[in-house]
Amino acid sequence: MQQPKRLKDLSKNEYKRILERSTSKVEEALSAVIPIIKEVKENGDEALVKFTARFDKVNLTAQDLIVSKERIEAAYKKTSPDVVASLKRMRDQVCHFHQHQIRKEWSINKFADKGEGRYELGERFIPIERVGVYVPGGKANYPSTAIMAVVPAKIAGVSQIILASPPRKTDQMADVVIVAADIAGAHLLINIGGVQAVAALAYGTSTIPEVDMIVGPGNAYVNVAKAYLSGLGEVAIDSPAGPSEILILADDSANPSYIARDMLSQAEHAEDNSAVLVTTSKKLADKVYQYLESEVDKCLRKKIIKKSLEDYGAILIADSLSEAIEFTNEFAPEHLEIMTERPHQVLKEIKNAGSVFLGDFSPVAAGDYLTGTNHILPTGGSARRFSGLSVETFLKKITYQSLSKKALNLMSEDIARLASLEGPYNEHIRSVKAREEG
Amino acid sequence: MQQPKRLKDLSKNEYKRILERSTSKVEEALSAVIPIIKEVKENGDEALVKFTARFDKVNLTAQDLIVSKERIEAAYKKTSPDVVASLKRMRDQVCHFHQHQIRKEWSINKFADKGEGRYELGERFIPIERVGVYVPGGKANYPSTAIMAVVPAKIAGVSQIILASPPRKTDQMADVVIVAADIAGAHLLINIGGVQAVAALAYGTSTIPEVDMIVGPGNAYVNVAKAYLSGLGEVAIDSPAGPSEILILADDSANPSYIARDMLSQAEHAEDNSAVLVTTSKKLADKVYQYLESEVDKCLRKKIIKKSLEDYGAILIADSLSEAIEFTNEFAPEHLEIMTERPHQVLKEIKNAGSVFLGDFSPVAAGDYLTGTNHILPTGGSARRFSGLSVETFLKKITYQSLSKKALNLMSEDIARLASLEGPYNEHIRSVKAREEG
Repeated sequence: MQQPKRLKDLSKNEYKRILERSTSKVEEALSAVIPIIKEVKENGDEALVKFTARFDKVNLTAQDLIVSKERIEAAYKKTSPDVVASLKRMRDQVCHFHQHQIRKEWSINKFADKGEGRYELGERFIPIERVGVYVPGGKANYPSTAIMAVVPAKIAGVSQIILASPPRKTDQMADVVIVAADIAGAHLLINIGGVQAVAALAYGTSTIPEVDMIVGPGNAYVNVAKAYLSGLGEVAIDSPAGPSEILILADDSANPSYIARDMLSQAEHAEDNSAVLVTTSKKLADKVYQYLESEVDKCLRKKIIKKSLEDYGAILIADSLSEAIEFTNEFAPEHLEIMTERPHQVLKEIKNAGSVFLGDFSPVAAGDYLTGTNHILPTGGSARRFSGLSVETFLKKITYQSLSKKALNLMSEDIARLASLEGPYNEHIRSVKAREEG
Repeated sequence: MQQPKRLKDLSKNEYKRILERSTSKVEEALSAVIPIIKEVKENGDEALVKFTARFDKVNLTAQDLIVSKERIEAAYKKTSPDVVASLKRMRDQVCHFHQHQIRKEWSINKFADKGEGRYELGERFIPIERVGVYVPGGKANYPSTAIMAVVPAKIAGVSQIILASPPRKTDQMADVVIVAADIAGAHLLINIGGVQAVAALAYGTSTIPEVDMIVGPGNAYVNVAKAYLSGLGEVAIDSPAGPSEILILADDSANPSYIARDMLSQAEHAEDNSAVLVTTSKKLADKVYQYLESEVDKCLRKKIIKKSLEDYGAILIADSLSEAIEFTNEFAPEHLEIMTERPHQVLKEIKNAGSVFLGDFSPVAAGDYLTGTNHILPTGGSARRFSGLSVETFLKKITYQSLSKKALNLMSEDIARLASLEGPYNEHIRSVKAREEG
């Protein structure tokens, strides 16, 4: 990777490389995605079998699309008790954190006129009924993603959670994903991946029930399919999640080997991942650079790591903590580690980030699996606009009002004046006046 | 409109007509929208001037794109003090309700091991920085929409709120919209409408600043432009809002003339609006029908109302309250009026609705302007998946965690086991182990 550089000395192109990260070609993907969606909508299960054979190289019958009870039992048997225990601990930790995101209905009462003019206003929170969860397959298994997506939906009270994940070449979805999904509480598991899974969940087929919302990370095609169907109003989605990334904000109190290890840990995910350090300490920057240079060849996934650090990595030196913070907010990282003397103080200045890891002993890996915060987070700078997955992702808000006759009368003049500015809406005015006379 | 019918006697086609409502042709609109977006992105202000001349038939210079301070002062002078007072009362009411939607940061501490294994988890709420608000123009002015969109953004703490509304044929945007936007607290007003306004806000031009999120209702083209740009990840948006609608759920305790007046009030908005009554009382259904038949010709906007009731209206008779409630949840109305003996009891059974109006004296017109709940709401059945505009629309959530060395150590074995299931991610494991040794 490139040697440390002062933030101020970065060329426009270098700055752009670091800030833009790996961006997928949405418009190209869209033209590939639309025909698949149309075919699944029209031909249902038949199209699912066809696309699974084509893209996943697995020949399923329509019956195999759904993971059977027997298959779930078999998956448990093939999974070691230690792994089951770790998955359960993860579920419990995620549960513990997310339970604090439950919303309680509220109402306010106004007494405009000694009780007679009383009216009530309030807000209720209702779970979305049917949710599809997408768990990627491909090169690895992601049981943790199953837990991160299903548990918040469960806590919100979603009554039907359908988890889709691509089948493995030899069989249905991986045992450990089946076990994780079951431990998390998914109601139905389906052996379908890619755009065809998204389309099946949005429209339903003979065997796959239609859902109201689809969440979970995926490749560029899955993300574009979700965004397209959401744009059409067919289904709600969570925030888009692309290649993963870490930004570490550190001063000279930080431990360079911890920082380097966390950058390697991010880079090992995939070549399109991004690991960046911004620090006020030139000395720290140099040490991290040296540590990375000496360690990278010892890593199991060194090819991926080298490419990731070369294309998207950076070690940047800021003149001051405030310059480093400003850069951080501009970068809007998915994962932000703050390793400074007073990390909580710095946290107060952070405006854009998915999840934040404070101090020397909070590596991202801990949040990936076990602290309990969600790891499905906005990437690529979209933390400027979006939030990570939470219980609230699965809650709708319904407002309500209940007026007494007197309360309405006390409002009627203003309502009439405002309605006459628009339209004018005479029937709006008459709907209010009718109640005065009645 | 058609005579009252039993829900159970509806043909499939009739049921579909009522449930589907007016749906716009998204795919057709998209092909018209994309070239406009591209041209605004490339040519900025020049394209805005060109499209404003073409679509709004108004010739603006690039300078006229922004409403000047002098122009705002002049708008106040041309607006009657009564109107200013009503707009301020509306703002205050909206403020009062929405202040209850402010979120407070929270954190939890865990003591796994007599304090040493302590770790902290929490969530913070941060306003989106720059927001664009779209206020439609066209046949009418919508000062109320300006207040409904700007006030929640203000309360959330958005630091730059830019309001866009199309210029009138003779001039810039309407005086009353300028005054409402100013009263609500918008920071900048721009005289641009349609797709070109959405594109300008998403990408920025020499005179228009780029925003992170665009909210507010619009015609089919505006909605499609928002969805397209959101799908590309360029900008966040609120829920889609199409033609407006009311569903009234009533039993024999309800007043038929109130119901009819509220249906007329909804139908007068536009021909594509939908007004539906579902009731357990055949007698009430007949009375509402007769009332509508006798009143519709007396309405100022009778042509619009007749067409709306004919195409999208219905009076439906349910065999039981629970059948009526089930239909309501299936319909998922933007506005729901409950006029039954115990409206609060029925409210508890409502799963899908934008805003609910309880009892005889809570007409939708009161919520449109003065109760304080938001009137920018999900339409066309999307209340099944989406919520109305709120303070939370403008808040991002950032989670965080802070672990002690001991706390991390207590987690490390499970983290290692879980990381080895995925990837396997050796560097994840080493990032945790490094801290044990350190």
